[in-house]
Amino acid sequence: MAFRKQGLGELEALVLLRRALDTPKRAPVVLGIGDDCALLSVGAGLLAWTIDASIEDVHFRRAWLGLDDVGYRALQAAVSDLAAMGAEPIGALCDLTLPPQTSRRKLALLAKGQAKAAQELGCAILGGNIARGPVIALSTSVLGRCRRPLRRDGARPGDELWLIGDVGLSALGLALCQRKRSRSAAERVCIAAWKRPRALLGEGRALVGRAHACIDVSDGLAGDAGHIARASGVALVIDEVALGRVLRPELRAVCEKLGRDPTRAALYGGEDYALLAAGPARRRPRFARVVGRVEKGRHVWLERADQTRVRLGGGFDHLG
Amino acid sequence: MAFRKQGLGELEALVLLRRALDTPKRAPVVLGIGDDCALLSVGAGLLAWTIDASIEDVHFRRAWLGLDDVGYRALQAAVSDLAAMGAEPIGALCDLTLPPQTSRRKLALLAKGQAKAAQELGCAILGGNIARGPVIALSTSVLGRCRRPLRRDGARPGDELWLIGDVGLSALGLALCQRKRSRSAAERVCIAAWKRPRALLGEGRALVGRAHACIDVSDGLAGDAGHIARASGVALVIDEVALGRVLRPELRAVCEKLGRDPTRAALYGGEDYALLAAGPARRRPRFARVVGRVEKGRHVWLERADQTRVRLGGGFDHLG
Repeated sequence: MAFRKQGLGELEALVLLRRALDTPKRAPVVLGIGDDCALLSVGAGLLAWTIDASIEDVHFRRAWLGLDDVGYRALQAAVSDLAAMGAEPIGALCDLTLPPQTSRRKLALLAKGQAKAAQELGCAILGGNIARGPVIALSTSVLGRCRRPLRRDGARPGDELWLIGDVGLSALGLALCQRKRSRSAAERVCIAAWKRPRALLGEGRALVGRAHACIDVSDGLAGDAGHIARASGVALVIDEVALGRVLRPELRAVCEKLGRDPTRAALYGGEDYALLAAGPARRRPRFARVVGRVEKGRHVWLERADQTRVRLGGGFDHLG
Repeated sequence: MAFRKQGLGELEALVLLRRALDTPKRAPVVLGIGDDCALLSVGAGLLAWTIDASIEDVHFRRAWLGLDDVGYRALQAAVSDLAAMGAEPIGALCDLTLPPQTSRRKLALLAKGQAKAAQELGCAILGGNIARGPVIALSTSVLGRCRRPLRRDGARPGDELWLIGDVGLSALGLALCQRKRSRSAAERVCIAAWKRPRALLGEGRALVGRAHACIDVSDGLAGDAGHIARASGVALVIDEVALGRVLRPELRAVCEKLGRDPTRAALYGGEDYALLAAGPARRRPRFARVVGRVEKGRHVWLERADQTRVRLGGGFDHLG
């Protein structure tokens, strides 16, 4: 928090960069700064293009993750941005930073995790860069193809709010990794959610033609809902009762043990790589669970069982 | 050097990654790991795609560079890979890592440098990612278009070896930045070469249809010549007299002052972002200077005035 007072927060930094770097769009650029991916019109369809970071002591600690997990989740996290656009992966480039004393065995383990994710996702790593640095860091750029991309800015009043995948588990998994204790089955589910997230590519593609807007939940449900609300110029209302119904029993079990509130864990977890979409009821796919609705207005709101509403703050601040 | 004994060198790491990550090429991938860019067949032409790192205390020190220089050179360096393939930029994504206490003013300066390079190169920054980290680090991914890419693996015995742009100045510039003295005009030329490199995009495109192979000189002429030799299965012979003729007088002046050998400075400098190409004499463009030839065999050789040859070792090792 000291930093946020002295320095600048993520949203402030993004606004600054957007102002400094945004230029009039020139073909083949269809969409620049401000969504999960940039969009380019090349050939028959569109290309979706993104970049994502995974940095030691920021996104992970080596005490808690194997280097195979590090490689695996870095690629899944990057591809999750494609899932959010309804795109299909073409391939990835990885810019890898390694500290001195990285052994051949460690690098092999990291590459093994990347290769496993690449195979599962159908997203081969096509090249990259390697450099020395103070910590292990992976910067993964991913390209995909889509015909009709799911953007953040299409949510309309009257839409349902759909959640695809689980939220909250991953952040609990991270919290559990920081304790050394015997682990229950529910705890292992949370830890697996953190260590081995999965980009919901198939679900993202199936949302095309159904959802009006979509985002992947990487910084917490509340914060990422805020991105849709801002981009679409609408209010997003999350129904606490509906959200409660879709939370995993493992989340409740672990929350009880850790003395945490399940709704809070679901809203502010982060690194879930679930999808949050907005679309009309008649087009809801079977795998989507309704957790709220889109209304005229602004901001993200949590509606309690007694109909009272509280406005929700942002998600994880990457500079906070 | 301690690291190279305990850990692993760059080439060894690249071989390991290539083995772990390389998969059979599937459409639209035309070229994966192993050249300046990956190549994808999308639409009418080819896409060239690359990623490049710029890390504080590895690629630069903040005492020696303004943050505008940091932003400027990170984009130029990444786009230089497109120049080497004869490609034209479409756009860039930047994954930016910032330490705590980064002020708004500093970020604005960094973005200003990026925006200047983006404008000069016709390569808008279309998005990216922002995260906290121990040092300033930029990972820049760039996409470009080309019809007939210049690869590393096409050099043929009988080809001339062409140098486009200057080598050696940038490394001297870096060395000069580490001393605090009044600076001569020659010294300022070297420092500018390091602080404000330029990707030779126009020259790269003009080499298409003329050169059989091309690489950008980022890790030193000797090392990057080695990449062409290995990929093409040929020997590259650098003619010391011919190389001497194309070196800038400023390089000689600064070498004399610093007590360095100009040939050595030219061969092992690094961060030049010149282009090294191989092609037939009849197709040599006017801006290319002959610095040697391609022969049957292996490795990179320096041929002295007395016709004796020494085999040249690698360039800068990013993990060394």
